[in-house]
Order: sequence, then structure tokens, then C-alpha cells
Amino acid sequence: MSIVQLKDVEDARKRIQAFAHKTPALTSSTLDGMVSEKLGVEAHLIFKCENFQKVGAFKFRGATNSIKSLLAEYEGTGKKPVVITHSSGNHAQALALAAREQGVICHVIMPNNAPSVKKAAVRGYGGVVTECEPTLQAREDTTAQVTEQLIAQDPNSVVEFISPYNDVRVIAGQGTLALEVLEQAEELGKPLDVLITPVGGGGMLSGCAVAVKGSKPTIRVIGAEPKGADDAYRSFYSKQFVPSVNPTTIADGLLTSLGSNTFPLILEYVDAIHTVSEQDIIRATKLVYERMKIVIEPSAAVPLAVALYSPEFAEWVKSIPARPGLNIGIVFSGGNADIVKLSKSFAQLETTTE
Amino acid sequence: MSIVQLKDVEDARKRIQAFAHKTPALTSSTLDGMVSEKLGVEAHLIFKCENFQKVGAFKFRGATNSIKSLLAEYEGTGKKPVVITHSSGNHAQALALAAREQGVICHVIMPNNAPSVKKAAVRGYGGVVTECEPTLQAREDTTAQVTEQLIAQDPNSVVEFISPYNDVRVIAGQGTLALEVLEQAEELGKPLDVLITPVGGGGMLSGCAVAVKGSKPTIRVIGAEPKGADDAYRSFYSKQFVPSVNPTTIADGLLTSLGSNTFPLILEYVDAIHTVSEQDIIRATKLVYERMKIVIEPSAAVPLAVALYSPEFAEWVKSIPARPGLNIGIVFSGGNADIVKLSKSFAQLETTTE
Repeated sequence: MSIVQLKDVEDARKRIQAFAHKTPALTSSTLDGMVSEKLGVEAHLIFKCENFQKVGAFKFRGATNSIKSLLAEYEGTGKKPVVITHSSGNHAQALALAAREQGVICHVIMPNNAPSVKKAAVRGYGGVVTECEPTLQAREDTTAQVTEQLIAQDPNSVVEFISPYNDVRVIAGQGTLALEVLEQAEELGKPLDVLITPVGGGGMLSGCAVAVKGSKPTIRVIGAEPKGADDAYRSFYSKQFVPSVNPTTIADGLLTSLGSNTFPLILEYVDAIHTVSEQDIIRATKLVYERMKIVIEPSAAVPLAVALYSPEFAEWVKSIPARPGLNIGIVFSGGNADIVKLSKSFAQLETTTE
Repeated sequence: MSIVQLKDVEDARKRIQAFAHKTPALTSSTLDGMVSEKLGVEAHLIFKCENFQKVGAFKFRGATNSIKSLLAEYEGTGKKPVVITHSSGNHAQALALAAREQGVICHVIMPNNAPSVKKAAVRGYGGVVTECEPTLQAREDTTAQVTEQLIAQDPNSVVEFISPYNDVRVIAGQGTLALEVLEQAEELGKPLDVLITPVGGGGMLSGCAVAVKGSKPTIRVIGAEPKGADDAYRSFYSKQFVPSVNPTTIADGLLTSLGSNTFPLILEYVDAIHTVSEQDIIRATKLVYERMKIVIEPSAAVPLAVALYSPEFAEWVKSIPARPGLNIGIVFSGGNADIVKLSKSFAQLETTTE
């Protein structure tokens, strides 16, 4: 019995649907043409646009599911749930906003070298930020200290740590996007054959894999990872957990190692993991800006980079039973890009390839 | 009797609807909040996203309507329509693609100093590019020469010049976006009180004004213009044509003077024209990237800049009969931005305002 099941994802969907956006599923005939040429088969891409999600990322789904689950758990007990996390990325903002919407206090432990714009964003959504030294030890110590203080202040408090990816409620929440895109692809007349999501800590990949394999087992689920942070790739194929050590990639949402909950789910439900170079991630990001006219962060472009530029993926596609019109779901995980920084990578790309 | 009427826009809509996208009308609660605060009234923005139109700009509407009208005019005569234009911007690409879709040859006269990426884009859509010296005289001489050659080659040809904005078929075509957004705003439960469009040559502003005033005369229509290219503003308030001389603005789609057809329509149907600074255009563009996660070109941000930052507009709003919830349509005219160049302006903005 897996620790997260289709039923959990379906329940999560009911919990979050009044709060999270049902993001659109977009298509692009230009990109269809490019991918078809690369793969040598007629292919259609269905882009699930979590860059249009609240706080600009899919993380809002898991955050809302966690908090709603927690409130249900303690309902009528007289206990007051408070959430705490450590993150300097989209999860911190997502948890802060989701908590505020549900009337829950949210504490976020952030390294003191995190960009001030990130701290301001968390505070803007109502999160209480505590800074710590940028080490793993300091982060865990500070989390423990803040938790103790909160309980000392109000013994009725239940302070719950919400992991950015390793929490089963978070995993189930992220999986809701897969249920949506399965339906949206059907409505577009393009039922999915493959779904590709980015993989960092594995919360989204595992949640989506559970959702897809639970509802349509014949659909393939693929993880997409930067070569500069390929711990999931190496873990998956060696079937041994490989930590992420000194990862280097522009896809800064994908730096983390897999979790103890996400890794087994990925081993059980995911069909393949493919990796791509930095240059291919930047090329894919730029294509989306130019051709689709939407803003995504580099982490979100990794699945498209796999579809367009990975020779291993092109080879792997041949193993799928052939039928006319291969329909590939691509998750655009978020849109919180630093345009000024990103455009420098675009400019370098122009210098090196033209 | 105006030279373009609601009926012409309605006919244009029928002609183009199988070819042009019905672009989405988006909303943003964050931007609603910002505008409401600035205006001191509850306001809702409805964004008509022509950045998602074919070739990334509203120009595809007018181009398609011109070519379909031309084909209908010469049907059964044995004459073969060919179109020609001079443009180095979105109109050239739009006319090339619209022509190709209708099986018509399209010639584009472009200055030899136009960026090679623009020439490549026109050729990519099947347009035949002829280069000339970057002067008005050379442009007109070359247009005449190419026209003569085409007729000499095939006496059955009818070579028709399609102006980027001063052609009545183009004006009617651009007006179709107004008919769509009127309906979309109703469907969203936010019927428009005001529609703001950018103004350059005035094709879109005049076409939209005709459409709006013909169908819902109480809705106000506003032109939005950069202070650095304020010829339409000065022409409108002096009721005398003022040419655009050495305009300087990042909104490079709005450099042109009004035309002999667009100016009278604007005088007759438009309620006001408001202008904004370069800094405000860049701020508005950046906001759209960051908050809405969509790519627009600076020209497209001028209406939002007016709504957010023009004191004259805020003053003018007080003249509108008050009712709860002022609904403002904002036309995002196109998305063909040079991200690398644009991000330099974003970076400068950060230096000067933070």
C-alpha cells in the first residue's frame, strides 16, 4: 500500500478547489511542429500553466491541502494549529498565503542571505519570517526554537512543520494538477499519452504519478531534471537514494534531494527520468517567452527542454506503442522568474548559438 | 456618415473569425487592487490579450480583413490580387501570414537597417521582402517600382497597397477586438464602462471606438499614448492634425502619426487621450510580467500605465457617472518584446526607484 493513493489526491482536490485556481491548459501549434520534427512523430503538447496559479507556482496546491487537512484533524479539539516551514522559495510564499486564507498563523525560517525580495514576499502574504545562519544546522535549530516559543506562548497551539515536498498532504495536493490536466487534455481532444513534470524534491512528480497511474495506468509519467542537479536521475536508475551535492543549475527550484516519502513513490509509479543541459533549459525558456508569450521560471522549462532536446527522451518515445498523434502533457510549474537575471542568460545564448 | 461604421466591423468579424484567434480576456485581483487605490474607486480591469493573437499582435485582424475583402471584391473577375505594404513591425508579419493563409502573394518593403530578425520573421511567414534605403522617398519609390514590376510580370495582377493603419478595411478589422471584449466583459459579470487602447497611427483606436460607440454608446473610449510620441494627444485636443516628429519612446509600435482616415474617426468617437512617461510605461510592463506572468511589448503596456499612473486619467474618471465597480477594458496590443533589451529598462527602473 503506497503512502499516497489516488483517493488522497481526489480528496485533496475537493479540499483545495475553492481556493486554488484551476489553471489553464494551453497549446501551441509552433511548438507542436518543433517537437514533431525532433521526435519524428506527430506530437501535440498540452501545457498545464501553474505559472498562473496563486503565488505563481503549483506549491499553493500542496500548501492549501496541508492546512485544510490539519484544520480538519484538530477540529473540535480546542487545539489551535500553527504551521512552520523552512524555505526561501515558492513553498514559503505559498504556505504563507494558504495559511492566511484559512486563518492560520504561518512561520517561515529563512537563511539571512535570502534575497530581501523573497522575505518581503513572504511577509506580504502574512507570513512571520525568522532569519537564521545559512546552514542546515542553524535552520533546524531555529525551527525547533521557534516551535518551542510558540508552544510556551500558547499551550493550546499545535505547531506543525510542513515540508516543501516530503509531506504526504503536500504530495497529494500537488497531484491535483495532474487530475485537472488529464481532463483538460480530453476536453481538447488530445488525451495524454505522456506527462512530464520537473523533479526537485519530488513532491510534484510523485503526486502527479500517483494521480495518473491511479486513474489511467497506461499513461507514461516522466521526470525532467537538469544535468547539473541530476540526483533524482541517479537515484531512480540505481534504485539507491543519491543526495543532491553542490547542484549547479539556473533551475533554482530543482536543487533539493528527493525525500524519504517521494523517492519510493517515484520508484513505484514513474516510468523514466530524463536530464537536460543548462543551455537547453535556457533555450526552452526563451522559446516559451517568444512563442507562447507567457512568463515561466527556468525550473518550469525543464520538461519542455526534455521533449525538445533530449536524445534519450526521443529514443524512449519509440518504446511507446505507436499511434497517430502523441499527446504530451508538460507542466509549467511556476512563473516567478527574475527577468533581469534571466535575460542575461538569453543574451549569452544568442552570442553562443548565432 | 463615417467612413467606417459598426456594420463594417461586424462584417469584418464574420470574415476573420475562422482565421484570427478569439483572444482571452484576463483579470488580475492584484492589479484591480492597485488601480482601485490609485483612482479612489472600486475598479476592475479586463485585459484583452492580443499578445496571444497570431503573429503576437492585433495587426493580424486588420490584415486578414483587408485580404478577405480584396478577394471578395475581385472574385470572378479573373484578376489576381497581390498585396504590398511597407512596415518593419508587426503589420508586415501579420500581412504576410494573413496573405499566405488566403493564398495571396505579399510583398513587404523594408528599410535596409531593419533588424535582420524582423526580415527573417516576414520571410518565415512567406512574405517577399524588398529592401530600400531608410528614407520616406526611397520607401515610396521602391513600393512603386515593385508594383510596376509585378504588373509587368502578370498583367492580370491587381497590386493593392495595404496601409498599416489608414486603410478602412484594416480599421474595421482592428475594431473586431472591441466587439469581443465587450462580450467577454459581460460574460465575466463586468460590463465595460471604459475601454483604453494604445494609439500610434490610430487604426486600433478608431476601429475600437467605432465598434464601441456603435454598439454601446455610453461606454467611454480612451486613447493611451507615450508623452514622447504625443502627436495624437496634441492633434485630438487642438482638432488640428499634428505630425509625429522625432518621437522617442520605448513603445516602438506607437511612433507613427495619425492617418487621414483614422484622425476624423478619433475626433468623432473617442472621449479622451491621456499620456504617460517612459518610466511609467516600463513600470506597467514590468508589473504585467511579474503579476500576470504574461509577455507583452512596451507599446501594449501604455493603457495600463494610463490607468495606474496618469493623474489626468484619475481626474477624468471623476467625470463618469459614479456606480460601484468601475470596469475598465485594457487592450494588450501585442507581445513581440525583445526581452534582453526590455530587461535593461527593468534593471534601470530598479536602480532609480529603489
